[in-house]
Amino acid sequence: MAKMKLLYAPSSPYVRKAMVLAMETGLDRKIETVPVTTTPIAPAAEVTARNPVSKIPALIDGTLALYDSPVICEYLDSKHRKKKLFPAKGKARWVALRQQALGDGLLDAALLARYESFLRPADKRWPQWSDGQMAKINGALDAMEKEVASLKGAPTIGHITIACALGYLDFRFADLGWRDKRRKLAAWHAKFAQRPSMKATMPPG
Amino acid sequence: MAKMKLLYAPSSPYVRKAMVLAMETGLDRKIETVPVTTTPIAPAAEVTARNPVSKIPALIDGTLALYDSPVICEYLDSKHRKKKLFPAKGKARWVALRQQALGDGLLDAALLARYESFLRPADKRWPQWSDGQMAKINGALDAMEKEVASLKGAPTIGHITIACALGYLDFRFADLGWRDKRRKLAAWHAKFAQRPSMKATMPPG
Repeated sequence: MAKMKLLYAPSSPYVRKAMVLAMETGLDRKIETVPVTTTPIAPAAEVTARNPVSKIPALIDGTLALYDSPVICEYLDSKHRKKKLFPAKGKARWVALRQQALGDGLLDAALLARYESFLRPADKRWPQWSDGQMAKINGALDAMEKEVASLKGAPTIGHITIACALGYLDFRFADLGWRDKRRKLAAWHAKFAQRPSMKATMPPG
Repeated sequence: MAKMKLLYAPSSPYVRKAMVLAMETGLDRKIETVPVTTTPIAPAAEVTARNPVSKIPALIDGTLALYDSPVICEYLDSKHRKKKLFPAKGKARWVALRQQALGDGLLDAALLARYESFLRPADKRWPQWSDGQMAKINGALDAMEKEVASLKGAPTIGHITIACALGYLDFRFADLGWRDKRRKLAAWHAKFAQRPSMKATMPPG
């Protein structure tokens, strides 16, 4: 059977979510990664062809082209017979999906802050915009610290997303010092980051 | 039983998705809307208290606080016994979720384009950023036109999201002329916009 194709960049935290889920469930052997380089002002044609809003990851499985990362992750989770990372129903499902939205929300703010400070010309930067995005990041971190107890136990898509979000801060916002005053979250992340799936998907050094 | 609370703004297309779903399924009687005014640089405290990344909609049902709009919509869809708007499984589910991501992706680009031209001071605007977001909007519109046949039949969360995205373009990007060269999508939208749920949630004039 033909492999699925995943449009991929090693530095994308949204791609990392899908890769971690694939490795946790043994699906990585059925996925071919296709490296791409894309930004909001220079979208890659091969991404736009599969995802009209030009974001990665995008997954191609036969005639089906899927995006964005929550859809891809849930689709992949339907394709294996191991323990599911998306709880099927009830409160466990809503907590996991809400945690995924929390991690993705942190990442959306982090990417916008990064575009502001690295992509946008220096004279066009607006400090209040960056401040607003950093406030979202810090708010999300405080919320994660507060609910760290709900990150224990068998991993879900919520745990994976939060771990990838924290990994992205270490990669691109090392100066933020997110661990200061968030010792429980830091301890949780240190342990989660030891999973082989997390180690194998570390962003480039 | 206590009503659910939905943090709400009549101009938010993401809020509109949840309201349309609620009206289509009769859940609107069980939801109290709580009006808020929030922006990325002036987040409302009552939003931040419920959603750490300060976005609406946020839904409060007893001790459960949920975000973002895809999570809220799926949660609401689990709370009624009428026809489901999230197909349970199989290709229908992946198409509906991917269409939701397409509509949300158009909206994310449209909101960023609007923040660039209305919120950001004039001397800090970067035309290439706006151009990049407009390219995403146009790419999404072309994709919707191409797959308009899949928007026929009983409504799904995909249809609702795309209809709300198009409604937002009429509200904030009337000059875009999205209907030009997208006649099939325009005809589909004209019909979908006649649904009572869509009429009742029109953005303010």
